[in-house]
Amino acid sequence: MPGALDELKELMAEVTDLRKISRLLTWDAQTMMPAAGVTHRAEHSALVQRLAHERIAGARTGELLEELRPLEDSLDPDSDDARFLWLVRRTHEKEARVPASLRAEMAQVAAEARPVWAKAKAESDFASFLPWLERNVELKLRYVELFPEVEEPYDVLLDDYEPATSTADVRATFEELKPELLSLIAELRDREVDDSFLRGEYPPDRQRAIAREVVDLFGHRPDSWRIDPTEHPFASGPGRDDVRITTKYEPDSLKSLFSTMHEYGHGLYTHQLPEAIARYPHGQDCSLGIHESQSRLWENLVGRSEPFWRFFYPRLQDAYPERLRPVEVERFLAAVNTVTPSFIRIKADEVTYGMHVMLRFELEQDIVNGRVELRDLPEAWNAKMWDYLGVEVPDDAHGVLQDVHWSGGMIGYFSTYLLGSVMSVQIWQAVLRDVPDLEERIGRGEFGALRDWLGEHVHALGRKYPPQETLRRATGSTISARPYLEYLRAKYA
Amino acid sequence: MPGALDELKELMAEVTDLRKISRLLTWDAQTMMPAAGVTHRAEHSALVQRLAHERIAGARTGELLEELRPLEDSLDPDSDDARFLWLVRRTHEKEARVPASLRAEMAQVAAEARPVWAKAKAESDFASFLPWLERNVELKLRYVELFPEVEEPYDVLLDDYEPATSTADVRATFEELKPELLSLIAELRDREVDDSFLRGEYPPDRQRAIAREVVDLFGHRPDSWRIDPTEHPFASGPGRDDVRITTKYEPDSLKSLFSTMHEYGHGLYTHQLPEAIARYPHGQDCSLGIHESQSRLWENLVGRSEPFWRFFYPRLQDAYPERLRPVEVERFLAAVNTVTPSFIRIKADEVTYGMHVMLRFELEQDIVNGRVELRDLPEAWNAKMWDYLGVEVPDDAHGVLQDVHWSGGMIGYFSTYLLGSVMSVQIWQAVLRDVPDLEERIGRGEFGALRDWLGEHVHALGRKYPPQETLRRATGSTISARPYLEYLRAKYA
Repeated sequence: MPGALDELKELMAEVTDLRKISRLLTWDAQTMMPAAGVTHRAEHSALVQRLAHERIAGARTGELLEELRPLEDSLDPDSDDARFLWLVRRTHEKEARVPASLRAEMAQVAAEARPVWAKAKAESDFASFLPWLERNVELKLRYVELFPEVEEPYDVLLDDYEPATSTADVRATFEELKPELLSLIAELRDREVDDSFLRGEYPPDRQRAIAREVVDLFGHRPDSWRIDPTEHPFASGPGRDDVRITTKYEPDSLKSLFSTMHEYGHGLYTHQLPEAIARYPHGQDCSLGIHESQSRLWENLVGRSEPFWRFFYPRLQDAYPERLRPVEVERFLAAVNTVTPSFIRIKADEVTYGMHVMLRFELEQDIVNGRVELRDLPEAWNAKMWDYLGVEVPDDAHGVLQDVHWSGGMIGYFSTYLLGSVMSVQIWQAVLRDVPDLEERIGRGEFGALRDWLGEHVHALGRKYPPQETLRRATGSTISARPYLEYLRAKYA
Repeated sequence: MPGALDELKELMAEVTDLRKISRLLTWDAQTMMPAAGVTHRAEHSALVQRLAHERIAGARTGELLEELRPLEDSLDPDSDDARFLWLVRRTHEKEARVPASLRAEMAQVAAEARPVWAKAKAESDFASFLPWLERNVELKLRYVELFPEVEEPYDVLLDDYEPATSTADVRATFEELKPELLSLIAELRDREVDDSFLRGEYPPDRQRAIAREVVDLFGHRPDSWRIDPTEHPFASGPGRDDVRITTKYEPDSLKSLFSTMHEYGHGLYTHQLPEAIARYPHGQDCSLGIHESQSRLWENLVGRSEPFWRFFYPRLQDAYPERLRPVEVERFLAAVNTVTPSFIRIKADEVTYGMHVMLRFELEQDIVNGRVELRDLPEAWNAKMWDYLGVEVPDDAHGVLQDVHWSGGMIGYFSTYLLGSVMSVQIWQAVLRDVPDLEERIGRGEFGALRDWLGEHVHALGRKYPPQETLRRATGSTISARPYLEYLRAKYA
């Protein structure tokens, strides 16, 4: 049986390596690849993904798992090997149900739909995207049918991004958030804050230096991180010692600074995953929600906090003396924390952000349950946008077409953005219990204790447990809306 | 049987894609990767190479080839399918003979020896590198023994880089070159040419712009090339529409310009490989020698020629007006064509270059045939350097340790540098027969006819034939030293 375990581990190490290679291919395509290289890249990415899938879903993996069942039953369920076997079994059983033909068709339609969406968005022409959305949805419904045992269809889709989390659980959390967020928005939306100085000339070369400075200040091992410019910021990289984050330097805004802090959180998670099992599935990141808890923690709990800016604001003023010398830190802090309903999620503040996510979560369930016709989606979108945020959507480019996800078949993804935000506050409070002087440390520009806490209590767990069990082990509790609401209430009191 | 052919093609397309992915991994490691990423990269590269090797050497490929033998015998031997089967059979039979354990050991020792060599070179300490050289040579001898049917052992090693080319053939060409090169060197070595202006301040940012200008002037399809700085220039890239060349911008020299033209020649070869078979082995580059014929052609036949500089020199003067306005084009042309024996191959001029290559070719045969003790290699090296070039090697860093190849187990590689130079002149003369006003075109900055000729007569052949047959089809003749010698004689008359 140790022979079978070794063989399975070797197979799964190949899967992990292939996935890391795939990440490098994607990073390169977004940052370095000449535009014409796209044809090769599509073939290369498809090959690498197929090789990974063959290993997970393959008959040999099934045989090894069968052979290893007695061993698995005899192990301490918290041991590394037990967690490895649990995860591989779960993934194998799921992937083995999906015919290669369906998977290929989903990948194909996603690849073809993406440029159609980009053009439709540029021209604000939902009708031209509609047939592709229909194909994506139809494929997703066929996918859902492969898993008849779930309580509701949407559970299948959610599980791809937030494993072992039910739609009902997410709904309960969101329903608790909703009335309070709506009342907070109503309270705060007309509060007058002068943030005009945040718009205007911020030369990108200095933004670039500041981004590097922040990432180095937050901290990491030497010679292991890159920051590159891209149209859409993301964090990636082929391994824990090769972390690559990206940001977008707009010449008239400081947004790159906050997006860099956000991506730093994602990057640090990768950077501190458990080294001893780095080549195995249980040594990878847990879920999108846990990932997002890390990025939102660094972006918001650290990056929009008073202690951080007490320390860092003089440095930012040095970078932009003409613009920022006349602005006191209190005004700056208020300006980067304004609450302003808008129609764009990616630029939303901490309070309105949740409503953007809920809107999509609700619409996706309506789609999957056939409660909305896809051609009526723009109207449904705009109605919710008015109900939740009081904004009138000017056109579909700023409405239903704004996000890339649906074009790529990523249905079931959105709720993780808000789950992450909610969990980030629970994690923050757990850090505060162990490191009571956390805010004083941050005020002195010291981030080592925070990094170490996250490394030890969250990152070190890798993918050994589902996200809610990971959160419970890290904080003592599964997800709860309460701390998040209290945090927002306190912050905006 | 068509089913078997399709299956074999699909397998080999995977091999080609894996090799292209491998090239991207290597390019990234040399240009973009944070230093700490090296551990992941070694694992990822090893995996991709192993997956490619398994497909070529694997039993299934052998079965398919067996099944396809009747088809192969019935095909027109010049048809694409016949060339495909010929190449796959040749490669399979070769790779299947090599035990995976030996291949792994060779890769392992090469990976370990490389940093040892780098340190030994930095400290000019041959003794510390000697044990690793011994291990590399011992592994190569074990590898040679797997192919007992060859005329001489060195044939096995040469074949890895220059397929179906015998050591005796190369020796014959080199023996014809040798006396004439030696007499040319004796004639030219004391000719006084003032090239002092080539040393001094040449700001790298302008070198960068000039490199881009030259590559765009020589020509390529849009949005398909990158140029990046590296310590050692090379050409690579994951496909014909994603070509990546590198160069080194030294602040006190114009060498990057010539190295860029050299790498352009390699890149153009990749760029113009036959599109219809781009995913198959017979659609790849033919050999290192043919590759080098392309790079040397653009570097020397174009890049050190009078017509080119009549056209381009004013542009270079515009980039460096203070340094180059006082220098007439004739002086510049003479300066970039001086003959000066030195101990460094990579900086050698066109005349002395050949002797550097012959020195290594001869020593490698002595090594493989046991005619020299490895510990006596520095002495043997220095003696030849004195005999051939009249230079005294100051230390082993500038002597036997100067090249990386032996540390990586690349024995059998060097002769391709000179074979390429020799073939470049034969190809040039063939172009001149078809495009008699080639030099006038170059004098007007027009390179389309040259690009197209190379594309049609050399690049389009891919790897369908061994290098000498490729040369014969392109020029009407296999390798001959005569045109090369005549070219040098005429140039330096």
